[in-house]
Amino acid sequence: MNTFGRLLRLTTFGESHGTALGGVLDGFPAGFAIDESAIELALRHRQGGQSTLTTSRREPDRVRFLSGIYEGRTLGTPIAFIIENTDTRSQDYSALSELYRPGHADFTYQAKYGHRDARGGGRASARETVVRVVAGALCAQWLRAEGIHIAAYLSQVGTVLYEEGLYRSSIHLTHEDEALLHLRYEQVVPCPDKATADRMAQAVAEARDRHDSLGGIISCRVDGLPTGLGEPLYDKLSSRLASAMMSINATRGFEIGDGFTLASGQGSTCNDPFRPTPSGEIEQTTNHCGGLLGGISTGAPLFFRTAFKPTSSIGLPQMLCGEDHSLHEYTITGRHDPCVALRAVPIVEAMTALTLMDFYLLHRAHQSGAWR
Amino acid sequence: MNTFGRLLRLTTFGESHGTALGGVLDGFPAGFAIDESAIELALRHRQGGQSTLTTSRREPDRVRFLSGIYEGRTLGTPIAFIIENTDTRSQDYSALSELYRPGHADFTYQAKYGHRDARGGGRASARETVVRVVAGALCAQWLRAEGIHIAAYLSQVGTVLYEEGLYRSSIHLTHEDEALLHLRYEQVVPCPDKATADRMAQAVAEARDRHDSLGGIISCRVDGLPTGLGEPLYDKLSSRLASAMMSINATRGFEIGDGFTLASGQGSTCNDPFRPTPSGEIEQTTNHCGGLLGGISTGAPLFFRTAFKPTSSIGLPQMLCGEDHSLHEYTITGRHDPCVALRAVPIVEAMTALTLMDFYLLHRAHQSGAWR
Amino acid sequence: MNTFGRLLRLTTFGESHGTALGGVLDGFPAGFAIDESAIELALRHRQGGQSTLTTSRREPDRVRFLSGIYEGRTLGTPIAFIIENTDTRSQDYSALSELYRPGHADFTYQAKYGHRDARGGGRASARETVVRVVAGALCAQWLRAEGIHIAAYLSQVGTVLYEEGLYRSSIHLTHEDEALLHLRYEQVVPCPDKATADRMAQAVAEARDRHDSLGGIISCRVDGLPTGLGEPLYDKLSSRLASAMMSINATRGFEIGDGFTLASGQGSTCNDPFRPTPSGEIEQTTNHCGGLLGGISTGAPLFFRTAFKPTSSIGLPQMLCGEDHSLHEYTITGRHDPCVALRAVPIVEAMTALTLMDFYLLHRAHQSGAWR
Amino acid sequence: MNTFGRLLRLTTFGESHGTALGGVLDGFPAGFAIDESAIELALRHRQGGQSTLTTSRREPDRVRFLSGIYEGRTLGTPIAFIIENTDTRSQDYSALSELYRPGHADFTYQAKYGHRDARGGGRASARETVVRVVAGALCAQWLRAEGIHIAAYLSQVGTVLYEEGLYRSSIHLTHEDEALLHLRYEQVVPCPDKATADRMAQAVAEARDRHDSLGGIISCRVDGLPTGLGEPLYDKLSSRLASAMMSINATRGFEIGDGFTLASGQGSTCNDPFRPTPSGEIEQTTNHCGGLLGGISTGAPLFFRTAFKPTSSIGLPQMLCGEDHSLHEYTITGRHDPCVALRAVPIVEAMTALTLMDFYLLHRAHQSGAWR
Repeated sequence: MNTFGRLLRLTTFGESHGTALGGVLDGFPAGFAIDESAIELALRHRQGGQSTLTTSRREPDRVRFLSGIYEGRTLGTPIAFIIENTDTRSQDYSALSELYRPGHADFTYQAKYGHRDARGGGRASARETVVRVVAGALCAQWLRAEGIHIAAYLSQVGTVLYEEGLYRSSIHLTHEDEALLHLRYEQVVPCPDKATADRMAQAVAEARDRHDSLGGIISCRVDGLPTGLGEPLYDKLSSRLASAMMSINATRGFEIGDGFTLASGQGSTCNDPFRPTPSGEIEQTTNHCGGLLGGISTGAPLFFRTAFKPTSSIGLPQMLCGEDHSLHEYTITGRHDPCVALRAVPIVEAMTALTLMDFYLLHRAHQSGAWR
Repeated sequence: MNTFGRLLRLTTFGESHGTALGGVLDGFPAGFAIDESAIELALRHRQGGQSTLTTSRREPDRVRFLSGIYEGRTLGTPIAFIIENTDTRSQDYSALSELYRPGHADFTYQAKYGHRDARGGGRASARETVVRVVAGALCAQWLRAEGIHIAAYLSQVGTVLYEEGLYRSSIHLTHEDEALLHLRYEQVVPCPDKATADRMAQAVAEARDRHDSLGGIISCRVDGLPTGLGEPLYDKLSSRLASAMMSINATRGFEIGDGFTLASGQGSTCNDPFRPTPSGEIEQTTNHCGGLLGGISTGAPLFFRTAFKPTSSIGLPQMLCGEDHSLHEYTITGRHDPCVALRAVPIVEAMTALTLMDFYLLHRAHQSGAWR
Repeated sequence: MNTFGRLLRLTTFGESHGTALGGVLDGFPAGFAIDESAIELALRHRQGGQSTLTTSRREPDRVRFLSGIYEGRTLGTPIAFIIENTDTRSQDYSALSELYRPGHADFTYQAKYGHRDARGGGRASARETVVRVVAGALCAQWLRAEGIHIAAYLSQVGTVLYEEGLYRSSIHLTHEDEALLHLRYEQVVPCPDKATADRMAQAVAEARDRHDSLGGIISCRVDGLPTGLGEPLYDKLSSRLASAMMSINATRGFEIGDGFTLASGQGSTCNDPFRPTPSGEIEQTTNHCGGLLGGISTGAPLFFRTAFKPTSSIGLPQMLCGEDHSLHEYTITGRHDPCVALRAVPIVEAMTALTLMDFYLLHRAHQSGAWR
Repeated sequence: MNTFGRLLRLTTFGESHGTALGGVLDGFPAGFAIDESAIELALRHRQGGQSTLTTSRREPDRVRFLSGIYEGRTLGTPIAFIIENTDTRSQDYSALSELYRPGHADFTYQAKYGHRDARGGGRASARETVVRVVAGALCAQWLRAEGIHIAAYLSQVGTVLYEEGLYRSSIHLTHEDEALLHLRYEQVVPCPDKATADRMAQAVAEARDRHDSLGGIISCRVDGLPTGLGEPLYDKLSSRLASAMMSINATRGFEIGDGFTLASGQGSTCNDPFRPTPSGEIEQTTNHCGGLLGGISTGAPLFFRTAFKPTSSIGLPQMLCGEDHSLHEYTITGRHDPCVALRAVPIVEAMTALTLMDFYLLHRAHQSGAWR
């Protein structure tokens, strides 16, 4: 199924080396003024900051809106858009068309569909995520108007760790930290801390030079989320976020709040007590839970992390198995990112925006008529 | 939303301290002979093996089927069943009815619904999972008839780790290892290795005696899954499994294959090459990917892990915030598991069975008509 | 699929001669005070007013709520309920178990499921509608609190027509007509006009005495519906109402407003002009469209009609074909209504209530944020 | 919601006077060879046979496929396509931009979205159906390969009736009648009988000359449908067909088999007995039920009819109400069909094909594993 969401639904289409990619975003409220520059900015973030660390495939990624927006405002009708493919080099793939690349979806797509796309990765290619970024940028803009801010960043690249500190645990950020977070895309790779970002870039450059690849982790923090978003039981906000993140290419893990480290914790130190605030609200004092209890938002910052495997395409010789069951030592050429996590930061943000806005609309359907 | 699945759909109902819990399993194929003892066994596994390590709430959990089965066979109509609640002690909760327990869903449910269930945890209670286990046992039985075997076990309790070895990485298990895996419920806690299981039980007993609680990790391995299950892009098998696992109470993380450790890996060592088999198939040589590429099953064993936080209810004094914004030092009493992961093993298996059978039916809808 | 609705979803279960029938109503807002007597009243209406005109199968139809309601108020959690079957006489069906009754679903269910329910009509029996009536009564009560009133009535039984006049065409009812409409269930069959109701009853009695059966038409009028309900394009209010009505047993047609008679009409006489009202609104002057334009409610009364075929079970000899392809002249015995439309009036109301409340909730999700 | 279907899903987009219209057809099986000429033919049928009877808006309706098809075969990925709008004359609408046209969706769209499309009918325009016709032509081709043939035709235009005879009632058509049915598009309007078609065309021409409009009825017959398609209870084939037909612009009624005339019938004459066939099957002897029992296909021809209201846009003066509550006598100009039913025949066929293919795929998911 190529549709994401319930009340707000994104349907996507297009193969990596086909004519065009595109999406239809249905359920977006009418009358919202669109800032097209925010979409361009998100696309630029997805292109990656520094060309030598990312693929040399350079699509201009010009978005053409076909419907749903008129004179700069949403109509309430489906917002359709396409991005034409211009820089396709299918010949890179021809030698591979009867071999199964390790770590790629060649083998599974062929098993599922009875064929595979001879022109390249088809729908399994990360090229598809350009569509998510466009739709997500629309949603992020709508959410910002409601006071909700989404910021993802690299917290690990290979063995280079970013000490996330306050971004991970604090209920309220200082103005300095907030400003730093919002400057993450100013670094060589999208990590708020310049020194760490430089070390990450260095690690990627070294992997590239070794013709190898690196994995990574992306953290995401959402401020301003209202209390009460999420649906029990099978549509918990955590369930849907996990599903959204695992739908991104190359993801292998998801955790919310303290995540896997909670497995070795104890209740006495991992619970987040509540306290009254001077302004008459109730809030968590700590945030081990990542802003969700029972799958529903607490009003604390939402915090979660997504793990990416190293890029499967590497420039070293590997043993490839052919459709005819022959084995070949083969070195994959072509244009590939040495670390997919670098360019996945805006994709994590986009999928987060799509997920949260869908829940926000759902929330409005049920929110009135509560027990007095 | 209280419904899980697409073609095979489980709708559940019932509050922890209400009249009854139950479920409606819709889409189960007609004519399948049900083994009721398999359901009873799964429920016994959920009850926990050794009473001193689990809650003293002792529901008999007698399942009454209301529809969908006649003379031991499924009719193709919805399979409805209920489990009456008999051992409810709502008075345990009355003192808490205006306080927000840390780590519980009291605060978020009140925000969402405008009230909370004065009788106890309502839908947020792990009591609801009894319904999942019944439905999952039906699915697991159907999958077994198709040659698919699901086995979950504890791989971590607090700081006690189980060295999973072959269960995690091997494409084919030895008969000895397979037998050991199937005996996991014979141990004091569901972990294949007796010595590790005993150390886990010891850790839980110590936490209980300190009036504290522990977290844990459950691993799950599925053998016999055919190639080609899973749907791109937003219904990848990994997406739906993540969603299914994160819908279980107290879960905080999910990873597939080598998961988070892949973040620090390199493509050259993390890719899984393919090879021909003597019997004329193609298979992975290693299993870092956990049996999925592009979100679609490769035919290798499916392997994933789910992290559980420590039980939020502990018997130590905590600061509780009241609805009236007052703060109270309070010690929660009542009947609670010191480690929820112990009893969650059959729940992980149940949600896995529901997820996989749904995909299996979906697969049949599309599988014919393939290219040549 | 045994689930109806999107945001408000009814899942039903139970075979006609099984243990129990029941439903799970998910998505009903929290905090609503339930009037159980309104449910009982709706069930009494479904039982039929005069026993000699309806089946002699007499189920007490006692509803037992299992979840979702506490101390008379909805919790926001799924509302589950069951009705136990007590008056099952499966032996009526044993002689038929290898014959295909004309007009019944025996043949198609066997084709679909590979078997059929030897105990009677299974899910295809109109017995299932008791569940819809319970759920619909909850929704109708909620809609009434929002000022929305649903009233269905018989507009045709066999060749006896009810001249619907104002109920069909008027934008505003007089108090007298409104009062008369609300007394429809006081008549011998549910039709507002006593004389017509008596003639309808007479026609049914005669058909029963001939061991034959009659068809009929049920009209439904909804007052107080707000403007703007319905979703383009494939979820028009007309689409979903048609779908809801055609899901009722024995229905064969649906029309909205002037329906099929519009086929022979002309634009100049069938358009409904708008006019300002003294209170500052805009309304239709006539109602040929039945209260919907573009599938969205205009604020005028919703009006639609549903056609029912004659009961398939008749007490006259018919040629029945057996599973073994033999032909038998056979007279079906057992307990059957000579006109299913008589008891279907509250079922039409129930399905209308379920449909409208679902759209009402959906409307709230999207209604704010409109173009200024 | 702008998506139709479950396993096979069409999502559509585009406003009548926007940049382009288009659709995404998801779930279409891989490896099917597409005949593009069949799509062009269906589009030509939608354009109408004789220009003086239909709107003078003349879009070339050139379809551009963006994805899902490669070298003439489906890939299993979403099939996206667009049709650019070239002949838009929004100025026709500018005078109307603050008036509510009777019978149009201006008023309801404004109520729903807080604005309306100043360029024309937006999504409410029948222009959108071009997308359905493209998608439906793909499905019809697939169904034909499975032996399923769909044929719709005009059975009423204004007061001109077509005596449908065998097309309505026969289980098996003669070769002559079958041939005649397949030539329906060769007539001046799509009705198999030349004399009737000519009279229909005459009636439309007269209405056009009076600046008025006519309604009509379209019948649809499907031969070759297998037994067992359809899902109880809320997804009966009749429910979904009704929903599909009522989603088409200007539809006001739907009936299956003998439909509304069954209301005045009796069981003794309306039941369809079964009989064995020489080839060892079981079939209906008559077809009052229209090929469905219990919402599931019997194997007999599917037969249903859809009623269309007269075109709302007429060239006669009408009283129009303005947004400012003023009343104006106004004569609508612009380009309109005097009878929408004429061009709706291929649209009925398209929606039928989409509905049936979706059920066909669903059927495959559940069909194996039957009792015994």
